[in-house]
Amino acid sequence: MSIDSVLERVDRETGASLEQLKEYLRIPSVSTDPAYAGEIRRCAGFVRERLETAGLEAEIIETAGHPLVYGEWLGAPGRPTVLFYGHYDVQPVDPLDEWRNDPFEPTIETGERGDQIVARGATDDKGQSFTHIKAVEALMAETGSLPVNVKFLVEGEEECGGEAIEAYVRSPAAERLACDLALVSDTSMYGPGQPSVLYGLKGLLYTEVRVRGAARDLHSGTFGGAVANPLNALGTMLAALRDPEDGRILIPGFYDDVQPLGVGERAAFAALPFDETKYGDEIGATALWGEAGYTTLERVWARPTCDVNGMWGGYQGPGAKTVIANHAGAKVSMRLVPDQEPERLFRAFAEYMRSMAPPGIDVEVENLNGAPPVLVDLQGPLVDAALEGIREAWGREPVRVREGGSIPIVSTLSEVLGAPVLLVGFGLSDDRLHAPNEKMDLANFYQGIRTVVRVLDRLGGCAVDGFSPGA
Amino acid sequence: MSIDSVLERVDRETGASLEQLKEYLRIPSVSTDPAYAGEIRRCAGFVRERLETAGLEAEIIETAGHPLVYGEWLGAPGRPTVLFYGHYDVQPVDPLDEWRNDPFEPTIETGERGDQIVARGATDDKGQSFTHIKAVEALMAETGSLPVNVKFLVEGEEECGGEAIEAYVRSPAAERLACDLALVSDTSMYGPGQPSVLYGLKGLLYTEVRVRGAARDLHSGTFGGAVANPLNALGTMLAALRDPEDGRILIPGFYDDVQPLGVGERAAFAALPFDETKYGDEIGATALWGEAGYTTLERVWARPTCDVNGMWGGYQGPGAKTVIANHAGAKVSMRLVPDQEPERLFRAFAEYMRSMAPPGIDVEVENLNGAPPVLVDLQGPLVDAALEGIREAWGREPVRVREGGSIPIVSTLSEVLGAPVLLVGFGLSDDRLHAPNEKMDLANFYQGIRTVVRVLDRLGGCAVDGFSPGA
Repeated sequence: MSIDSVLERVDRETGASLEQLKEYLRIPSVSTDPAYAGEIRRCAGFVRERLETAGLEAEIIETAGHPLVYGEWLGAPGRPTVLFYGHYDVQPVDPLDEWRNDPFEPTIETGERGDQIVARGATDDKGQSFTHIKAVEALMAETGSLPVNVKFLVEGEEECGGEAIEAYVRSPAAERLACDLALVSDTSMYGPGQPSVLYGLKGLLYTEVRVRGAARDLHSGTFGGAVANPLNALGTMLAALRDPEDGRILIPGFYDDVQPLGVGERAAFAALPFDETKYGDEIGATALWGEAGYTTLERVWARPTCDVNGMWGGYQGPGAKTVIANHAGAKVSMRLVPDQEPERLFRAFAEYMRSMAPPGIDVEVENLNGAPPVLVDLQGPLVDAALEGIREAWGREPVRVREGGSIPIVSTLSEVLGAPVLLVGFGLSDDRLHAPNEKMDLANFYQGIRTVVRVLDRLGGCAVDGFSPGA
Repeated sequence: MSIDSVLERVDRETGASLEQLKEYLRIPSVSTDPAYAGEIRRCAGFVRERLETAGLEAEIIETAGHPLVYGEWLGAPGRPTVLFYGHYDVQPVDPLDEWRNDPFEPTIETGERGDQIVARGATDDKGQSFTHIKAVEALMAETGSLPVNVKFLVEGEEECGGEAIEAYVRSPAAERLACDLALVSDTSMYGPGQPSVLYGLKGLLYTEVRVRGAARDLHSGTFGGAVANPLNALGTMLAALRDPEDGRILIPGFYDDVQPLGVGERAAFAALPFDETKYGDEIGATALWGEAGYTTLERVWARPTCDVNGMWGGYQGPGAKTVIANHAGAKVSMRLVPDQEPERLFRAFAEYMRSMAPPGIDVEVENLNGAPPVLVDLQGPLVDAALEGIREAWGREPVRVREGGSIPIVSTLSEVLGAPVLLVGFGLSDDRLHAPNEKMDLANFYQGIRTVVRVLDRLGGCAVDGFSPGA
């Protein structure tokens, strides 16, 4: 096999790859909102078709939630087996009026580094994970086979808890997922042109707090002063999450299981180029702020955080309505670091919130989803081979980084497969993921395909000690 | 003139009066939302027509905001002149899904005290102020004239600040409003069957607080910990409004100008029948709560309060969205007592809110509307005559009460007219004003008409010292 001819094919076919990505992005596969269930299913079908076109055997796996898509090609006995993970679901699009175009009608715009594709899911994760399929397709089309065995597992619930894949990976049926190495592209590079391998992801605890007062809304003149107001009470509860001075999280016991940052790791973080002013400018923040005693990189990568993601209650329209609403609510999430446990922290959080309920106010706290934090062990000949492929693709040494985001399935895969999970992202920090006008640089989309081609090529040169689990 | 024949006519014509009230309630005259401007105008036209049908000269007065409706009949020279005030606008209807029926399709239901009419504006203030028009109409139809001169001023901005009427009453054109006594029905009775005259209304300061962070929404994983979150910041600000333990308002200087409650007034409040359990049950509150050191009546009638009337920010849909929204907001209102000044308190409030902005967060505070508190002086022969009419109508001594609500125009009328403003309400505390399923007991609607007939009859027996301003 000639790697050059495969890469030439990738370059020759960028136009078709882009059109296929657009088609993928046009499907509004919002997983968190039941109204989109039909689109989720249509999207799973699209992924299955693309896998089949690439030359794999593919199928839809039904679950209690949104379907999984599985694909495999096992024609390289004695060679390693690589499992690709991705997700075909996307975040909701609100606030819709802040999008320049329809979020599900991909638009090519010219950004500061060239063309970019703007749509919900452009980078998270359709654009990124589609590079896996396109790389395999190019290898297969050019050479008639693949240098390694490959498996794909693409889920539809990454943005809403990932319960279906979690259950599947822990079920007996998941024996078929056995592999020597897993590859995930759902993260950002450390900077433009800087290939990056991620070894730490935060965990997540995402909750909803609901506060109820009287049986009905009350006139704030007639009844003001007589009863506790659910909105005031919710304000008190949200204020009690973090110390407004030093940014510390005030949930009792929250820091008990936090692994302190080691001196070596702090030094490694500090050695990375990081421009606070540029970072702030990129997101339009006039100042950065966070937990006292830590740098911005430390706060984002390695210290737990707590954010209010949504809040609501009472009158939100124009003008004045003098009402004491009888209910209010908020979404509150925490990002966790080793060795914090989502379940244990949920109990502490719920108890803390309930302890603040004033007389006459009922507080309910729901655990919407959670994921444990992950630290990946980047060791062994297969990891080295993959890193070499990345180095070749970008002409530059990949940096080892951590991330503030969570990919719930990564820790499960890592635990169940007993194989290293390589997190190689092709996104950038200005991709506006989860926000209006989400985008992916087209150069990164194409370079992502090339990177996966080179990684598979390098892995194909590895001997598998004894039995390869996939072959 | 025979008062009995007029009252018989009122009783004979309750069916027609009810149909006309329904027609009035069907007009969705929501003043705070610009989308209803056309309905507001239609509603003003309805009031004008009803005044003309009653036998008055009536007209629409254009303003910078919603129109005023003015009507007069000045055929009783040497007799007193009575000014009726009311408002034809209503509160918004959300949450719409908590209404049993369309809020603008009045429905007759059977309540615990008999039939009630359920619709937005049933009691606040269409139902109550329509009693004025129907009383005048009955007197005119039965006797061909009125015992006193009457003027009507009905506004369309009571629920959204009342700027138009405020400007009008303070303009030279308002000379025509000169009167010996003003009558307002926009309040609640102390209890069913207990006629009540209100001598104290709270003032109002209604604000909107808007908090802004980064230029765009951010992924709460990728950026969590790096920047202050506008929603967390708003929580901190809302929590700082009141002490969660003793309920005191923490805005600096808030209590500086508060007139302490006198021993005599506290004793008078304590002498009124008041059942805390029943009060709580009526609104479905499992506990009452408020400023330490005061009874519920004192808190509601005579102590200033501060309530969050609305709050919003970030993701409010089902499931989880891991976002740091770039803006959030809240409606915050304060009810004021003598001698608190809305303008002065607004400045203190805005400064207090801004002082809590963390780095990178911009805070804007807007004064949506305000009204000074009022204490009415219930003195003089005309007041005595009116009270006698009320006593006759209900067969019971009216009690003198205060209220937690605000009627912005009352203090202005009181100041500009130099005449006593009599606040005689026909509502009840369970009327759900400003809330879903607002209602008015039909018995109170009809009894209100009878009360106004008797009050006008009694006032007609008064000599006006020297020149009556209206004649």
